Amino acid sequence: MGAREKPASVDLQVIVPYTFRDPKSRLASLLSTEERRDFARIMLEDVLAAIAEVGHPPTVLAPPGLTDISAPIIEDERPLTPAVNAILEPPTAVIMADLPLLTPGTIRDAFDQPGDVVIGPGRGGGTNLLVVRDDAFEVDFHGHSLADHRRIASTAGLTVTEVDSHRVSADVDEPADLVEVLLHGSGTSPEWLREHGFGMTATAGRVSITRESDDA
Amino acid sequence: MGAREKPASVDLQVIVPYTFRDPKSRLASLLSTEERRDFARIMLEDVLAAIAEVGHPPTVLAPPGLTDISAPIIEDERPLTPAVNAILEPPTAVIMADLPLLTPGTIRDAFDQPGDVVIGPGRGGGTNLLVVRDDAFEVDFHGHSLADHRRIASTAGLTVTEVDSHRVSADVDEPADLVEVLLHGSGTSPEWLREHGFGMTATAGRVSITRESDDA
Repeated sequence: MGAREKPASVDLQVIVPYTFRDPKSRLASLLSTEERRDFARIMLEDVLAAIAEVGHPPTVLAPPGLTDISAPIIEDERPLTPAVNAILEPPTAVIMADLPLLTPGTIRDAFDQPGDVVIGPGRGGGTNLLVVRDDAFEVDFHGHSLADHRRIASTAGLTVTEVDSHRVSADVDEPADLVEVLLHGSGTSPEWLREHGFGMTATAGRVSITRESDDA
Repeated sequence: MGAREKPASVDLQVIVPYTFRDPKSRLASLLSTEERRDFARIMLEDVLAAIAEVGHPPTVLAPPGLTDISAPIIEDERPLTPAVNAILEPPTAVIMADLPLLTPGTIRDAFDQPGDVVIGPGRGGGTNLLVVRDDAFEVDFHGHSLADHRRIASTAGLTVTEVDSHRVSADVDEPADLVEVLLHGSGTSPEWLREHGFGMTATAGRVSITRESDDA
């Protein structure tokens, strides 16, 4: 609540990387290419809206050609790691675009964590959120990025805080991840899924995603 | 930090349900029956140790026959739902036994949440942690328990707080869940996995679990 009044937070740069070429390919069994493109963009807009509500206007980092986004765009056609490092002026936060469970409260809590580096781990060893407050740190999103970011910070003698949040850890890559969006999402993403026929069914104690075969 | 001094917390009953017949069957591709039984018990002990450190001695709820556990046992051979409801005297917390990422801090944070009912959702629509402070609530662990618990509380006019924690949501059922144990666990569970040949490998941006074929 108090976060938006803190003078130290005023200058925080918030970057949301976004690639829009063949997005969310592991959802291809459930969504057409065009639907995956639409859904990826809807998730991005949910993330941008949550960040904006915290009081830090986000900037999207994307390859050239992205239009109709409700935030300024920095174009860079390089892979994620060099593109982010090129603009990593502390204090900078990096937040992934496929986190439709994020709420303003979740983001504020992460920004309020102490440490030279705040890491929000993604399920499966990824990095979904970073707050970088020291220029000795640089990102490495290739491979096992959580381990890499822990190591880079440690080597540079930087203090690290890790965020314990299901909403931060739950990036949407696979069909099972859509269940989390329906269970916990509050933005446009769960609405879009429901409009496109998605629902949940409980079988043998675990909830699975289902899709009606037609828009009927 | 202050939680263990709070007089209101002194009477909190903490129940850890545990079934030991064919535990963790979805790990059968990686672990033998005996190994699954050992690992389930190691996770249980990690959970019991984390709870004990918060200052609330836990009680294990199990079918008859369980021995050599570092906590008192209430025996009940019925399914989870009636067995828990039979001893659900508020205030009672219910914490699942397959949560090796739990830390004392995570548990304390959950216990400190307000509300007649505190729910810690599991990934995939389950319920991994409950704090029940009103006797109008009863549990239903069959099927889609998160939705059921939301509904039961709502029908009874009770206030609900949901815990946003990756450590609470990450129950261990499937091979991919073991990655989380290696990445974030701090008790005996990750140690046991490493001793039994488990490690991680990063392929195509996601970390997978691996096991050496022999103890060589």
